[in-house]
Amino acid sequence: MITQCETSEELDQLVERARAYAKEGKVADYIPALGQADPNDLSIAVHYTDGRCLAAGDTEKTFTLQSISKVLTLALAIMDNGEDYVFERVGMEPTGDPFNSIAKLETMIPSKPLNPMINAGALAVTNMINGNTVEEKLGRLLAFVHDMTGKSHITYSSKVAESEFKTANLNRSLCYFMKEHGIIQGDVEELIDLYTKQCAIEVNCNDLARIGLVIANEGKDPETDREIIPRQISRIVKTFMVTCGMYNASGEFAIRVGIPAKSGVSGGILGAYPNKLGIGICGPALDDKGNSIAGIKLLEMMSARYGLSIF
Amino acid sequence: MITQCETSEELDQLVERARAYAKEGKVADYIPALGQADPNDLSIAVHYTDGRCLAAGDTEKTFTLQSISKVLTLALAIMDNGEDYVFERVGMEPTGDPFNSIAKLETMIPSKPLNPMINAGALAVTNMINGNTVEEKLGRLLAFVHDMTGKSHITYSSKVAESEFKTANLNRSLCYFMKEHGIIQGDVEELIDLYTKQCAIEVNCNDLARIGLVIANEGKDPETDREIIPRQISRIVKTFMVTCGMYNASGEFAIRVGIPAKSGVSGGILGAYPNKLGIGICGPALDDKGNSIAGIKLLEMMSARYGLSIF
Amino acid sequence: MITQCETSEELDQLVERARAYAKEGKVADYIPALGQADPNDLSIAVHYTDGRCLAAGDTEKTFTLQSISKVLTLALAIMDNGEDYVFERVGMEPTGDPFNSIAKLETMIPSKPLNPMINAGALAVTNMINGNTVEEKLGRLLAFVHDMTGKSHITYSSKVAESEFKTANLNRSLCYFMKEHGIIQGDVEELIDLYTKQCAIEVNCNDLARIGLVIANEGKDPETDREIIPRQISRIVKTFMVTCGMYNASGEFAIRVGIPAKSGVSGGILGAYPNKLGIGICGPALDDKGNSIAGIKLLEMMSARYGLSIF
Amino acid sequence: MITQCETSEELDQLVERARAYAKEGKVADYIPALGQADPNDLSIAVHYTDGRCLAAGDTEKTFTLQSISKVLTLALAIMDNGEDYVFERVGMEPTGDPFNSIAKLETMIPSKPLNPMINAGALAVTNMINGNTVEEKLGRLLAFVHDMTGKSHITYSSKVAESEFKTANLNRSLCYFMKEHGIIQGDVEELIDLYTKQCAIEVNCNDLARIGLVIANEGKDPETDREIIPRQISRIVKTFMVTCGMYNASGEFAIRVGIPAKSGVSGGILGAYPNKLGIGICGPALDDKGNSIAGIKLLEMMSARYGLSIF
Repeated sequence: MITQCETSEELDQLVERARAYAKEGKVADYIPALGQADPNDLSIAVHYTDGRCLAAGDTEKTFTLQSISKVLTLALAIMDNGEDYVFERVGMEPTGDPFNSIAKLETMIPSKPLNPMINAGALAVTNMINGNTVEEKLGRLLAFVHDMTGKSHITYSSKVAESEFKTANLNRSLCYFMKEHGIIQGDVEELIDLYTKQCAIEVNCNDLARIGLVIANEGKDPETDREIIPRQISRIVKTFMVTCGMYNASGEFAIRVGIPAKSGVSGGILGAYPNKLGIGICGPALDDKGNSIAGIKLLEMMSARYGLSIF
Repeated sequence: MITQCETSEELDQLVERARAYAKEGKVADYIPALGQADPNDLSIAVHYTDGRCLAAGDTEKTFTLQSISKVLTLALAIMDNGEDYVFERVGMEPTGDPFNSIAKLETMIPSKPLNPMINAGALAVTNMINGNTVEEKLGRLLAFVHDMTGKSHITYSSKVAESEFKTANLNRSLCYFMKEHGIIQGDVEELIDLYTKQCAIEVNCNDLARIGLVIANEGKDPETDREIIPRQISRIVKTFMVTCGMYNASGEFAIRVGIPAKSGVSGGILGAYPNKLGIGICGPALDDKGNSIAGIKLLEMMSARYGLSIF
Repeated sequence: MITQCETSEELDQLVERARAYAKEGKVADYIPALGQADPNDLSIAVHYTDGRCLAAGDTEKTFTLQSISKVLTLALAIMDNGEDYVFERVGMEPTGDPFNSIAKLETMIPSKPLNPMINAGALAVTNMINGNTVEEKLGRLLAFVHDMTGKSHITYSSKVAESEFKTANLNRSLCYFMKEHGIIQGDVEELIDLYTKQCAIEVNCNDLARIGLVIANEGKDPETDREIIPRQISRIVKTFMVTCGMYNASGEFAIRVGIPAKSGVSGGILGAYPNKLGIGICGPALDDKGNSIAGIKLLEMMSARYGLSIF
Repeated sequence: MITQCETSEELDQLVERARAYAKEGKVADYIPALGQADPNDLSIAVHYTDGRCLAAGDTEKTFTLQSISKVLTLALAIMDNGEDYVFERVGMEPTGDPFNSIAKLETMIPSKPLNPMINAGALAVTNMINGNTVEEKLGRLLAFVHDMTGKSHITYSSKVAESEFKTANLNRSLCYFMKEHGIIQGDVEELIDLYTKQCAIEVNCNDLARIGLVIANEGKDPETDREIIPRQISRIVKTFMVTCGMYNASGEFAIRVGIPAKSGVSGGILGAYPNKLGIGICGPALDDKGNSIAGIKLLEMMSARYGLSIF
C-alpha cells in the first residue's frame, strides 16, 4: 500500500491554475454538511499501475462519495447478479436528461431507467445488492471499498446520511415509481436508508485514486494482482464512466478530457485511465451541471499536457 | 494505397458465424434503393496503421454512407468554422431519444440539437459547411472523402439521393424548427438537397476502413503522414462515435464492443480504434435500432477475441 | 328527501340499449374488490331541481366514489382555504396526459399539477383539507357528503381503502415529487391513507344524483335552499367537470354529451346539468380511458334525445 | 342586418375599467403589421338573438382573425368532410401544452394533433377544406364568412398574410411532421399560403359578434333562421371554444368567465353564449398566454355582472 505520494512542482502549478476557477462555482448546500465545505479546496492524487503516486493539495481530507458510489454499487450488483439480471432492469444508454429526472421512466415502454449513473438507475442497482438487511448490504459494500482501497476503517458519515435521508423525497418518488413498475422490490424506506449511507461513505483523494487504479487495472489489486472486480465488469464500469459519468456534461467531458471518470456532488471525481492510472480529486465548488468546476479544469489541463484522452 | 487485402481463415469464420444473425434483422425499405440490398451480405475490411489489411466477404461492393456521413461533415464543419462556432449551435451530449426525434428541440431552452449524430444536429452541421452553393459544398465534402480514401472517383448515387429527398419530410420538419430558432440559416430545400446527397455517397468496405484508419491515425494519412484532419478534431470525432455513434444503442455497443464506430441505415459501420486500425463493414440487415445486426455481432466477436475495447 | 324515484319505460329502454356496450369494456381489476363487480350492471338515477326523480336499474347497489371524490374534495378545499390558496398550488388547465402522469410535474416550471382532476392535483387538494388528523379530515369530508346526500350513515369501505393503500405506489411517487417541490406538506403515508379512504366512500346512484343535484343547483340544498357549497365554488366544480371530468376523454365527452360530469374507476359517473338536474350512474365495465363504457353511451343517448348539452 | 348598435353607459364604464389592464400587456410584434396596433385600444360589440346590439369603443376598426379563424375552418371542414373524417385525423382533447408545440405529435402513438385549436390541429383542419386550389379553398372560406357576417366584401390583408408566410417556419415544421405521419396531404407551401391568408382575414368587432351570434344561435342566421352551420357542428365548435379556445389559459377562462370563446394574437376575441348572444372584442395588448389582456378582464367583469357563465 502506498503510504506517501511524491509531489511535483508541475502538478502543483496546474492545481493552482485550476483552483482559480473554483470561485465561478458553488458548493452544494441542499444539506448543511455539504454546505460547510471550503469552495477553494482542490486536491488530487494520481496512482499508477507501476506503484508510483503523485499528489497535490490536502489529499488526506475526507469527503463523501455521493454519486461516485454509483460506480461501486454497479460493479457489486453485477458481481452479485450477473450482467443479464442487472441490464434487464437498468439500461445501458446515456441520456440528455438531468440525473434526477423521472419523465423518461414514464415515457419509456416498458419503464426502465436509462442507465445506472442517473439516480433512478443507481437506486435500482443498489436495490440488487445481495444481503438480508440494510446492515448486511452496507457491510458488503464497505468490505468492497476496503478491498479496493486497502483501508479497512473506511465507513460512512452518519450525519451526512441522516441529512440526505430527510431530504430524499425526489429519490423516494423515483423509487415508488419504479416499485409500481416492478423495477425495484422491497421496502422503499430501507432502500433510501441504504442509498443515503452509500452516498455518505467517506474517503480521501488517495482512497479514490486507489479505487480508480483498481478499475483501471482491469479490476485487479495493483500490488498483488488479485482480482477484486472481474475484468469484464471493470470494463463495463469504465464504459459508463465515459458515456454517463459526469451527469449531462458527460459528452463534453469525454471530448475535452477523455478519461473515464465519475463525479459526485461533494466535489469528488474518480478517474480511471485503462491500464495506466487511477485519479482521485476533490474540489467542492460545483459548476451548473453538478461537477467540480476546478476539478474538471484540472483534468482538462492534465489531459492536454500528458495526452490522457483514450480517444 | 492498399490494392489487395489479405484474407484470414479466422476472420472468414467469424464472418460466417456473424452472418447467421442477419436473418433476425431487416433491410431498410423506406426507399426502394435500400430495400433491394441482400440481407445476407456481410463483408469487412480492416486496415492497420502499419499498412497491413485484412478482408472478408465482398469488400468491393458499394453501399451508401447514410448516417456514417455525419462523422465526415462534423469533421469538415469544425475544420471550416472552429469548435466554438459548431458547439454553440450543436451540443456534445448523448441522448436516450431516437435519432430522428424533435421533442428535445422544443423542451431544451435555448433550443439546440443535443449532438451532431442525431438528425437534427447533423442537419445543423451540414448547414455549416463552407461554400456558396449546394454543388460547391458537396464538392468540398467529396474532395474530403477523396482525400481520406485516396480514391478520387467516389461520388453519390443520384438515384438514392432523389428517393431520400422525396421522403425527407421529418428532416424538413427538423430544419424548419431549427430555422425558427436561429440554429440553421438559408434555404431548407437546398439543405435537404445537400444532406440527402451526402447520405447517398457510395463507398465500399475498403474505402470505409481507410476513412476509419485516417480517423484512428489522429487524422493523418497513414502512408504519407500528411494531416487530413487536425488531431484534436479527429479526437472529437472518435469521442462522438463512442458516445452517440450507434443511435440509441450506443451505450450498449460501447460496453459490448468498445470501438469508436458509426453506423448507417444502409448497413455500413465505420470503426476507428485509436492509433491502430480502421474498420469498414457492410451488412444490410438491421436490428430494431437501425444498426447492422450481423455487423454488430461481428464486431462483438472480434472485440472479445482480439481485445479491441478501448475501455 | 326523495325516498322513491319514478320509473320510465323510455329510460329503461335506453339503459337496456346502453348496457349492450358493457361487454366491450372491462371491469377494473387492479384491486380484488373492484374486480368483483358485475360488468353487466348499469343503473341510473336522475334528480330534478323540482323534486322529481327518475331511476332505472338497481339504484340502491353501492359502489365506491374513486375519482368522483376529487370533485368533493376540491369543493371542500376551496371552502377551507379560498380560491387563491388552492389555485396557487394546483392549476386550472386541462391536459392531454393520462390521469396518473408525472412527467408534466417535472417539465412545468414551477412544478404544479395542471388541474385538480388528475391524481397529482387531487392529492394536492386532499392535502389542503382542514383538520389535525386523518380521522378529523375524513370526518369533515364525510360530513360534507352527508350534507349533500342527506344520508348520515354514508362511510367508506375499509376493505377497498386497504387494498388501494397497498397498491398506491404511483400516488406515493407523485406525492414525494410534490413534497420535494413544496406543493404538499406533511406525512405522505397519512395523505395516502386519507386519499384512499376518500376514494373508497360508498354511495349508490341516488346518492350520486343527489350530490349532482346540489352542484347543479348552485350549491344549494334543492329542498331547503340552504347553501351547502357557495355558488361560485359550485360553478368552479362544474367547469372542471366539463374540461377534465372524464380523464383524457373529457374533450370528446363534452362534444358527444355536453353535461358536466365526473367518472370513477368503479364505473360511477356523477352528472350535474346547471339549474336543472343531477345524475348518478353506475356501470362497472370501463373503456380504455377508464370511464364506464355503458354509462357514457347512456349519457350520449340521453343528451341526444333530451337536448342535455350545455353547448 | 344590424347597422347601428346602441351604446350603454354601463358597458362604456366596464370597457374603461378593463382598458386600464392593457398597459400590463404587450402587442404581438413578430410581424410588423401586428406590432403597429395601439395597445390601448379596446372595443366590444354584443349582438343578441332578438336583434338588439350593444357596442362600446371603435367597433368599425378592423383587425385580423388570426387564431379565431380556427373556429371557422373547423366548422367548414366538418361540413365538407363529416365528423368522422375530421376526428380521425385531429383529436378532441384539450392539452396543457402551448399552442405551437410539436412534442406531443411525436409522443402520441399514432401521431395526431390533440385538438383543432392548437396550430398543428388547425393546419390539419385547413388541409381538409374542399377545393382544388388555394384560391378556391380560400374563396369558399370567405364565402362562409360573408354568409355569417352578411358582409360580402370581407377579405384578407395580403400585407399581413405575406409577413406571416415569411415567418411561418414553426408551422412548416408542424406540417412536414404531419405529412410524414400521413395526417396532412399535398403541398406544404400551399397549405401555409392558405393558412396565413385565413389568419389574415380582416373583420371588425361587429362582424365578429355577428359570427358569434350565428354560432350561439345553433348555426342559424338570427334574422332569417336559415341554417349556415348545422346545429350539431355549431355545438361542437362551442365545445372546443370552452375546452381549448383561449390557448393554455382555457381552463382558467372557463372558470373565471364561462363563455365559449376563441382568441387571436391580434387581440380579437369571439364569444358565443348559447341561444343568447354573440360577442366581438378587440384589444391588441396581450397577456403572456397570447390572449387580449383587457378583453379577458372585460369578459370577466361582464360575466360576473350579468351572470354569463354557462356553468
